[in-house]
Amino acid sequence: MTATGPDAADPAAAPPRRPQIPRLASDYTAEAAQRRMAFLRQATGVSPEHLGRYSFDPAVLAGNIENFVGVAQVPIGIAGPLLVDGEHARGMFYVPLATTEGTLVASYNRGMKLLYAAGGVRTTVVADAMQRAPAFGFDSARDARAFGDWVTANFAAIKSAAEATTKAGRLRDIEQFAASRFLFLRFNFTTGDAAGQNLTGKATERACTWIRAHYAGIRQCYLEANLATDKKSSHLNILRTRGKRVTAEATIPADLARRVMRTTPGEMFRARQVSNLGGLMAGVNNNGNHSANGIAALFAATGQDIANVAESSAALVHTELLDDGSYYYSITIPALIVATYGGGTGLPTQRECLELLGCYGAGQVRKLAEIVAATVLCGEISLGAAVVTDEWVAAHERLGRNRP
Amino acid sequence: MTATGPDAADPAAAPPRRPQIPRLASDYTAEAAQRRMAFLRQATGVSPEHLGRYSFDPAVLAGNIENFVGVAQVPIGIAGPLLVDGEHARGMFYVPLATTEGTLVASYNRGMKLLYAAGGVRTTVVADAMQRAPAFGFDSARDARAFGDWVTANFAAIKSAAEATTKAGRLRDIEQFAASRFLFLRFNFTTGDAAGQNLTGKATERACTWIRAHYAGIRQCYLEANLATDKKSSHLNILRTRGKRVTAEATIPADLARRVMRTTPGEMFRARQVSNLGGLMAGVNNNGNHSANGIAALFAATGQDIANVAESSAALVHTELLDDGSYYYSITIPALIVATYGGGTGLPTQRECLELLGCYGAGQVRKLAEIVAATVLCGEISLGAAVVTDEWVAAHERLGRNRP
Amino acid sequence: MTATGPDAADPAAAPPRRPQIPRLASDYTAEAAQRRMAFLRQATGVSPEHLGRYSFDPAVLAGNIENFVGVAQVPIGIAGPLLVDGEHARGMFYVPLATTEGTLVASYNRGMKLLYAAGGVRTTVVADAMQRAPAFGFDSARDARAFGDWVTANFAAIKSAAEATTKAGRLRDIEQFAASRFLFLRFNFTTGDAAGQNLTGKATERACTWIRAHYAGIRQCYLEANLATDKKSSHLNILRTRGKRVTAEATIPADLARRVMRTTPGEMFRARQVSNLGGLMAGVNNNGNHSANGIAALFAATGQDIANVAESSAALVHTELLDDGSYYYSITIPALIVATYGGGTGLPTQRECLELLGCYGAGQVRKLAEIVAATVLCGEISLGAAVVTDEWVAAHERLGRNRP
Amino acid sequence: MTATGPDAADPAAAPPRRPQIPRLASDYTAEAAQRRMAFLRQATGVSPEHLGRYSFDPAVLAGNIENFVGVAQVPIGIAGPLLVDGEHARGMFYVPLATTEGTLVASYNRGMKLLYAAGGVRTTVVADAMQRAPAFGFDSARDARAFGDWVTANFAAIKSAAEATTKAGRLRDIEQFAASRFLFLRFNFTTGDAAGQNLTGKATERACTWIRAHYAGIRQCYLEANLATDKKSSHLNILRTRGKRVTAEATIPADLARRVMRTTPGEMFRARQVSNLGGLMAGVNNNGNHSANGIAALFAATGQDIANVAESSAALVHTELLDDGSYYYSITIPALIVATYGGGTGLPTQRECLELLGCYGAGQVRKLAEIVAATVLCGEISLGAAVVTDEWVAAHERLGRNRP
Repeated sequence: MTATGPDAADPAAAPPRRPQIPRLASDYTAEAAQRRMAFLRQATGVSPEHLGRYSFDPAVLAGNIENFVGVAQVPIGIAGPLLVDGEHARGMFYVPLATTEGTLVASYNRGMKLLYAAGGVRTTVVADAMQRAPAFGFDSARDARAFGDWVTANFAAIKSAAEATTKAGRLRDIEQFAASRFLFLRFNFTTGDAAGQNLTGKATERACTWIRAHYAGIRQCYLEANLATDKKSSHLNILRTRGKRVTAEATIPADLARRVMRTTPGEMFRARQVSNLGGLMAGVNNNGNHSANGIAALFAATGQDIANVAESSAALVHTELLDDGSYYYSITIPALIVATYGGGTGLPTQRECLELLGCYGAGQVRKLAEIVAATVLCGEISLGAAVVTDEWVAAHERLGRNRP
Repeated sequence: MTATGPDAADPAAAPPRRPQIPRLASDYTAEAAQRRMAFLRQATGVSPEHLGRYSFDPAVLAGNIENFVGVAQVPIGIAGPLLVDGEHARGMFYVPLATTEGTLVASYNRGMKLLYAAGGVRTTVVADAMQRAPAFGFDSARDARAFGDWVTANFAAIKSAAEATTKAGRLRDIEQFAASRFLFLRFNFTTGDAAGQNLTGKATERACTWIRAHYAGIRQCYLEANLATDKKSSHLNILRTRGKRVTAEATIPADLARRVMRTTPGEMFRARQVSNLGGLMAGVNNNGNHSANGIAALFAATGQDIANVAESSAALVHTELLDDGSYYYSITIPALIVATYGGGTGLPTQRECLELLGCYGAGQVRKLAEIVAATVLCGEISLGAAVVTDEWVAAHERLGRNRP
Repeated sequence: MTATGPDAADPAAAPPRRPQIPRLASDYTAEAAQRRMAFLRQATGVSPEHLGRYSFDPAVLAGNIENFVGVAQVPIGIAGPLLVDGEHARGMFYVPLATTEGTLVASYNRGMKLLYAAGGVRTTVVADAMQRAPAFGFDSARDARAFGDWVTANFAAIKSAAEATTKAGRLRDIEQFAASRFLFLRFNFTTGDAAGQNLTGKATERACTWIRAHYAGIRQCYLEANLATDKKSSHLNILRTRGKRVTAEATIPADLARRVMRTTPGEMFRARQVSNLGGLMAGVNNNGNHSANGIAALFAATGQDIANVAESSAALVHTELLDDGSYYYSITIPALIVATYGGGTGLPTQRECLELLGCYGAGQVRKLAEIVAATVLCGEISLGAAVVTDEWVAAHERLGRNRP
Repeated sequence: MTATGPDAADPAAAPPRRPQIPRLASDYTAEAAQRRMAFLRQATGVSPEHLGRYSFDPAVLAGNIENFVGVAQVPIGIAGPLLVDGEHARGMFYVPLATTEGTLVASYNRGMKLLYAAGGVRTTVVADAMQRAPAFGFDSARDARAFGDWVTANFAAIKSAAEATTKAGRLRDIEQFAASRFLFLRFNFTTGDAAGQNLTGKATERACTWIRAHYAGIRQCYLEANLATDKKSSHLNILRTRGKRVTAEATIPADLARRVMRTTPGEMFRARQVSNLGGLMAGVNNNGNHSANGIAALFAATGQDIANVAESSAALVHTELLDDGSYYYSITIPALIVATYGGGTGLPTQRECLELLGCYGAGQVRKLAEIVAATVLCGEISLGAAVVTDEWVAAHERLGRNRP
């Protein structure tokens, strides 16, 4: 086969036999990656120079990727110190942010400077649970309701079946949501330091197997049917938490706002009211400014699942103009999915970023959640101030890649 | 100051003088990055080995990051060939997916195999616009309405002011949304091959400056107040598009579904109905399965802004069980933010990934949008089948990092 | 003061002394009503002939209205028999519908005819609770969380305080929702045959008084802050029920659909899929057709609070095309607010309408809920069929008041 | 058949032949109504005394109801004077409110008193359109997009076809919304003094007939598919208006708030912030207090379609605490459906209520919209104050029917 470039095939014709990307018996090796890269070169005519430049043994990647060919080198900038007054994170942190968007690190850093001077960011993990939500179908709504009663009565046995599959996971409770002749069961697990989607899936599957063996009349059973809303934003998760529900708070004295941000709490608060109105009208899942920026950058740096930005980017912002002229600012992230164990957290650069934060491994996941929330708050305030002082575009002109 | 580790400070005390992360006059250099790394080592006691292992000259990073210290090495797996029958993307593509979640590449690849055999994925960019939505406040709702009439009458002049700042951007129209004594103007730009948030911001700011100079009685003006909902999901953008609105479609013969997916269109369709019900009840911004997975992985690989996963992960799935037993499956992504120019697209590995897709540089952005949508559709069908065949958890057991 | 008509005042001038609508010591009397009517005649120059024509002693109105002047005579049409296979409603019912919209009664009646032939409507009250959701503010999110723990630990005492105010109400549980430094407590009461907003308000207020006396550090406490969402539709109530959560189901044989509705289950199902897609895109709180029509008409006839149409009109429709060609159709109303005792249920015509349904007084509220849901389902199917057969507009032409 | 009461049938058995509600050749007559009432008496064993007591000739009901048997007598209380500073409504109005909920009239009246003293309510109709939104299905998304281009190019002809059916209706524009292989067209009509759903339906149907005759390749066409969301609340209509978009505004001096409401603007504003937070978390379609109360009561009194409370109850509240201590309060109702002509507006008591407001007949619909919005604002402020002063429950104790 000659190199053809990606566009050569004629899709109208019956497709030719599908080429196979090479796989080796020992597939998590440099050799396997190079074989695939050679295949790509031949298939596309493109010869990447940088993709294949990674600094680790591909053997570490088993469980994290298939058909490995190389790495995206995503630049990391450091912001900080971020001063956190949490229950798990306490003190100064230097926050690695992986992004390609100019201004982002500088903006978060500016917010960190402000809140450092204001005494730091107070953080609280308010709730913590991971879900899988199987749907069960019956002959009628009445049968579905009867099944719900049975589930309540048999919770201990269901819990026992679920937990047999996992060391770290504990089934906290099962919420029930009824519609038509279906009952959706929302299994709430605590999952230790893992994000927990996989252990939750496995444990819930086992529970469903037990349920199906012990309850007659189930017409349909799906392990997932859009109620847990993994990788999707949903109102359910804003209300009932998915992953960590974390609040970050700070109070900014008026003179500090003026000095660092060139604006006043009153001006910022006035703008916030309009943002609340705009967001309500637009139907947002986040009335804040841009929490996804900080979350995505921290996720990419620390080996979190970046697809979870979809749900983790929901947020509830509430601010108050206090009698002494200072400005209380808070953000609550109701569905923050983070891990310090499992997933991508153990990969080389990802683990190093967690280590820089003192967050790698066991017992650290709430600390990481607090650092994420504190970082996010700094970015909210920084952008909020830039909007009212008309400095936003100028900052992107100076620091961003604004050529078009 | 001795090295203290991240947790040493006492946040209750007045914070000490804030340490400064080093910056050099020539800051986009290996030397500057090393100076910062040395600072981090001293401040945290952690000595990263891999973060500093990048394969390019940091000079390329100007405009993409501040306080650069190194790179996240995010593993890339290759899926494909993906067969696309688009208007811009035509033929076979090998899709680089940057992720740390085991199973993801394999699952998308499985879907690509299925739809290859089904004749490929048909893709259509239905709409294309990037927004900035300033809010204007007045003394009364009546004054806000009068301003709206003036904006309509003066569109040509506003357009001229906006477009003076940009080569690539064109102001298509201005939508008006009224609430209380505010009028929100949603500026719709076409932005060429850039994602366009920055050029849109700059052009809209200039337009606002012109407006404020020519219209009396504006009490408040904010360049953004949560109506454009950058980095946030909103119903407005689901309805009215942000970035690209793309639809991917395919029709799967029944025997193919059985052979490749071990299920039937009827079974998949029946499960989809329950997912629609669950999603409606949960209040999702996406009634599909997991489009954020494919989008995030492609975004990370190709230098897109991963924070945009927040809005790009909204989706509308519609399927039909056809009379001949085959299965029509479609997904519409109403707010897909992609670029083939600007932002992170020109960085070394990111550019190479775009080149593998034949998507780097001018004139390629709709092609990239089509490839993203086609990839997403493959993942939807693959996971949809895995859920009905109860293979989902088993796949993660085999390929994922499920240790906790 | 001379009669001026409504438009005579000049609002720019300082308003003159505000006229007082007459009130008498014995205010729930025909005399008082006539005095007010005379006042209106003088103030507006209008002499109503029909408003004052009611058939009862105004003494019955104490607790239902202030400043009584007369009655709206809203025409009632009868539809039926509706065949219900409920747990509380069983058999045939003749349903009084108060409306001024031509076609409405005929359309519901057509659906009742169809489902009568199909064996009736199966109805199930799935859940039942009424809420008040006070908000408590604290110094910090951490303090709010601690308060939540205290509430859990002191549930028995709070329940005791709440229930001291009511014979019919029982506090089932308290759900907690956290945001910023606030904790919202959603008190779930069962309320017997009353709709229960008032008893719930009173009992929750008492509970809050007890809480404030026993817990230090509450900065703010509001009996309501938009979480119970009385008279408003909310996603919370779609998920967690307000009032009755009722499902109505029926299965329609294919030949019956053809004979009565001039269409097929396949055609109706195909249209339903498009309605689901349209509704998802539009952001509806109801993916059905027009449940508000039947609900409002039954509410007006039977003395329910018609403002509750706001929340009671949310609905989840799910249908299935069965293998034998018949059509399963269901609607779930998650927030149906109904009463057979208290409110307007005891007024003369309202009580008579409840009596026609065998629903007046104690022990009847779930029966009424089932009749409402069954009625609604008939209307859904009737309109659904009219849309696919293009008979909808023709029906309104024939039966509606389409003169403009 | 002997009288059986409603519950006698056994739904498990094949249903007996369905009884027929009597209809006469001259059906809009007292005789026909009495015949049906006699039938009801026999079928249910219930003998209503009040339902049959109406003061008009049933001949007036043609076009408003089918199977007429009598009237619901809904008590009307009068509130006012309401001082309105509108463009169409100017001066003092006495507002008829039909309700059975004690406290409602008193509460609205209290708000009217406050805003009278504050100089009245400023009202503005910001936008005005009625919709029907047919869905068109094609072979592919690309075909749907091509159809959209054709619609744009043929707008004049489509408009001409639509307007041929109506004297009052004018097709303003057609918005396009694309999903999957469907294009939804949102026809925006101005409809004079009618609410306009029927004329809009008829005109859009005619337009669709024209379109289908002139455009090949349409696979499916439905006059409605949940995008216009008649009788349902939707985010689309909050954004893009359905019926009238009206804003009511007022500014309350601090001393007046204290004197009339026993609270301060600061306290009310502080509570409002928490309501905004609660509503955002709950997912409301209305961040205000209880606009459905006033709207439903005015709708029932004046012959509006009370099912439209479903969509008319959406609202956007925005308030500001001004520098001089006074309180700016506004509510925007984005989907207020009102008529002064057609529907139930011409029935005897309903017409009289419109006449009391100077709103009956041609040229009055925006005036009525302004009065509704002004009334709603008074109720918002009154309840808002009652919540912060803990007077809410006490008021219902005093004036409501709180016996359970």
